[in-house]
Amino acid sequence: MDVYELLKEKGIEIGDKIRINSLTGILMPKTELSEKDIIVLKLENGYNIGIKIREEKEVELIEKRKKISKMELKKEDFDASKPTISILACGGTIASKVEYETGAVYPSFSPEEIVEAFPEIREIANIKAKKLFDLFSEDMQPEHWKIIAQEVAKEIENGVDGVVLMHGTDTMHYTSAALSFMLQNLPVPVVLVGAQRSSDRPSSDNQVNLVSAILFAAKGDVAEVVVCMHENSSDNYCIIHRGTKVRKMHTSRRDAFKSINTSPLARVNYFEKKIEYLRKDYRKRDKNRKLLLDLKINPNVGVFYFHPGAKPEALKEMSKFYDGIVIASTGLGHVAINILKDEKGKNFLPVIEEIIKSGKPIVFASQTIYGRLNLNVYSTGRILEKAGIIGNGCDWTIETALVKLMFVLGHTKNLEEVKELMLKNIANEISERTEE
Amino acid sequence: MDVYELLKEKGIEIGDKIRINSLTGILMPKTELSEKDIIVLKLENGYNIGIKIREEKEVELIEKRKKISKMELKKEDFDASKPTISILACGGTIASKVEYETGAVYPSFSPEEIVEAFPEIREIANIKAKKLFDLFSEDMQPEHWKIIAQEVAKEIENGVDGVVLMHGTDTMHYTSAALSFMLQNLPVPVVLVGAQRSSDRPSSDNQVNLVSAILFAAKGDVAEVVVCMHENSSDNYCIIHRGTKVRKMHTSRRDAFKSINTSPLARVNYFEKKIEYLRKDYRKRDKNRKLLLDLKINPNVGVFYFHPGAKPEALKEMSKFYDGIVIASTGLGHVAINILKDEKGKNFLPVIEEIIKSGKPIVFASQTIYGRLNLNVYSTGRILEKAGIIGNGCDWTIETALVKLMFVLGHTKNLEEVKELMLKNIANEISERTEE
Repeated sequence: MDVYELLKEKGIEIGDKIRINSLTGILMPKTELSEKDIIVLKLENGYNIGIKIREEKEVELIEKRKKISKMELKKEDFDASKPTISILACGGTIASKVEYETGAVYPSFSPEEIVEAFPEIREIANIKAKKLFDLFSEDMQPEHWKIIAQEVAKEIENGVDGVVLMHGTDTMHYTSAALSFMLQNLPVPVVLVGAQRSSDRPSSDNQVNLVSAILFAAKGDVAEVVVCMHENSSDNYCIIHRGTKVRKMHTSRRDAFKSINTSPLARVNYFEKKIEYLRKDYRKRDKNRKLLLDLKINPNVGVFYFHPGAKPEALKEMSKFYDGIVIASTGLGHVAINILKDEKGKNFLPVIEEIIKSGKPIVFASQTIYGRLNLNVYSTGRILEKAGIIGNGCDWTIETALVKLMFVLGHTKNLEEVKELMLKNIANEISERTEE
Repeated sequence: MDVYELLKEKGIEIGDKIRINSLTGILMPKTELSEKDIIVLKLENGYNIGIKIREEKEVELIEKRKKISKMELKKEDFDASKPTISILACGGTIASKVEYETGAVYPSFSPEEIVEAFPEIREIANIKAKKLFDLFSEDMQPEHWKIIAQEVAKEIENGVDGVVLMHGTDTMHYTSAALSFMLQNLPVPVVLVGAQRSSDRPSSDNQVNLVSAILFAAKGDVAEVVVCMHENSSDNYCIIHRGTKVRKMHTSRRDAFKSINTSPLARVNYFEKKIEYLRKDYRKRDKNRKLLLDLKINPNVGVFYFHPGAKPEALKEMSKFYDGIVIASTGLGHVAINILKDEKGKNFLPVIEEIIKSGKPIVFASQTIYGRLNLNVYSTGRILEKAGIIGNGCDWTIETALVKLMFVLGHTKNLEEVKELMLKNIANEISERTEE
């Protein structure tokens, strides 16, 4: 018996209270793939138990899980002396507070619970909150970016002083880059925030990150898409990264997010509730500025990671699934083209030329992560640029190059125009000069 | 007329002195792809000139370029009080000294020239040298690793006290990882060294890196495969990285190489010619130890870089070209499997299961670069591990995971054995504990 089908029929979802024969408990998500007839309950005594289901009638819904997905400002709570910010929840660890119920970490969030959990938030700003979706970070797709961008635009049109996006950390830098392109001419800050450790762990960073993000959304002067995360392992400071120049650089550390090829924009002192600006070249807050929402994005872009042993035929085949390719090249912008005719060499040039001739752009980003592409240093780089590779002089990350190519391909498929737009700085994704 | 065909017929190669009508000069590599009937000469006055070839008889070979590819120790030069090391050249920027001839940076090296250029080398050790191949770093293939490993083994059998490998930087960390697996039980140091800037630039790092590498090969106590490169932007220090735990982390900086998820092994003080050890857990030099050369490697492994918008079908198609796949996952080890059934979600699980069921292993490495995989934290991770994903608990880089999978697949295709070998620490590629 496939219990998932059965539960679906009965309208039972994870988190609901159910009864199986004489046992009552909360339905938990399963991690076992094969045993289709077993479900896991968290009993009232806190223990989890796996139960084999034999007959349909054994399972009974007692109570649906309480779902709150939106929290409007109540008139009596509104304080005109404070800024108003909107929290939009997109899933991820930071929104996993209610997971005590089932014991498993999976994204879920009730706006009211989050504000209840961190009462200091109300001292900073008037809070509105809305859940956009429950998602694991790795499930985020370009289609979700559009929804987020639209919802942010709606909040801004309604006059909020800043927007906070609670987001899973795994793909937060992809989303921050995407929103940087889609939300142009921003009047107020849009702050993405996540947590590296869930709230059931004493070392959780969710409170410091969230409160700092709310502070920056409410009072920060940077009207751009930014990411707010721990600066280091201590809880004193968060750092504000530019959305197109940030990357998750560690699997588990609380200071996993780093600005790449640029310095961060600002530092938030969590305990003193103060903001220190680290750069001057940002767009200043101005509520009269008119946001330009640009949702045109083509999600059909893939990444090819070049390496010794990589096969040109694999690149060719992969290109059939996409309208454009980002190649994670080595160093200054290289892939094997074997101009020295080594008998063991591989040559990617014919396939690259073929893909570009078929009308699909190829963009380089370096797998070194740090540094700038330069196709002029070596003869091989010049050959690749001549073949049409886009990226010479750019210091974008693989992720930002990918997202930008999706955005550009949403606007044109003309290769000349794609190249022109890619090399044009739209959202500070290309640093004007190298900071060392 | 295809001049390359013509030159080939006449036995003329890049760097040869030739005459075209009345003009004499050095044949240079071309960077133009389309103009097949034009060749470029560097004239004696230093200028480059492009010449259109109309007739075959116009081109005449004057003098072949001098090629020295091996430098044996001369008896009169041998100093029994000094260690003897062998320099093997595999191309790359560090070996681009003779490029003054043509003005272009492409790899080429004469062992005698290198020793002439840096006379201080002779004060450290007796030097043997051999050119293995002229290669751009990005052209390095697994087949070349075998040649290098064999040549290193030969030198060690002949009794040298250390080996230095001059190598291009783009793929040096792939090669250092590969040699770490192929050269087991090393009795003496094997030191890879490169240069980020060619010797025609005043800021070149080739001298400091090469001399430091030679010093460490001659006198260092670490009988492992290591990488020796600048520690920071100044010329005072080089740092010795473990071959499996190092990565090129910048396109152009001289201190581009960083130890990942571990501290480096040692520091070389270039000016004082001193070595400072930073760890104790390394294999000590012992010339009586017997090297185990293991050349079994299967180069058919590819890397799939997961990202929002990545398509399961592309992974499936790609897997047909390879015998195993490394997936650059997000964070702790995730790819979209959409267990929350979002309507816009993508699910990689069926394709992953299909590939593994077909007998091909899938290994995870995190695209964060830093940190350790942990498939136990989230329910999604547990599902992926159950599906057969290899890598839980490992802190290897994408590159080292790739090279190790090639090595393991050279020894067995049995999935159980592959998993066991992958998770077994062979060359310190998995840190026992996390250093922060």
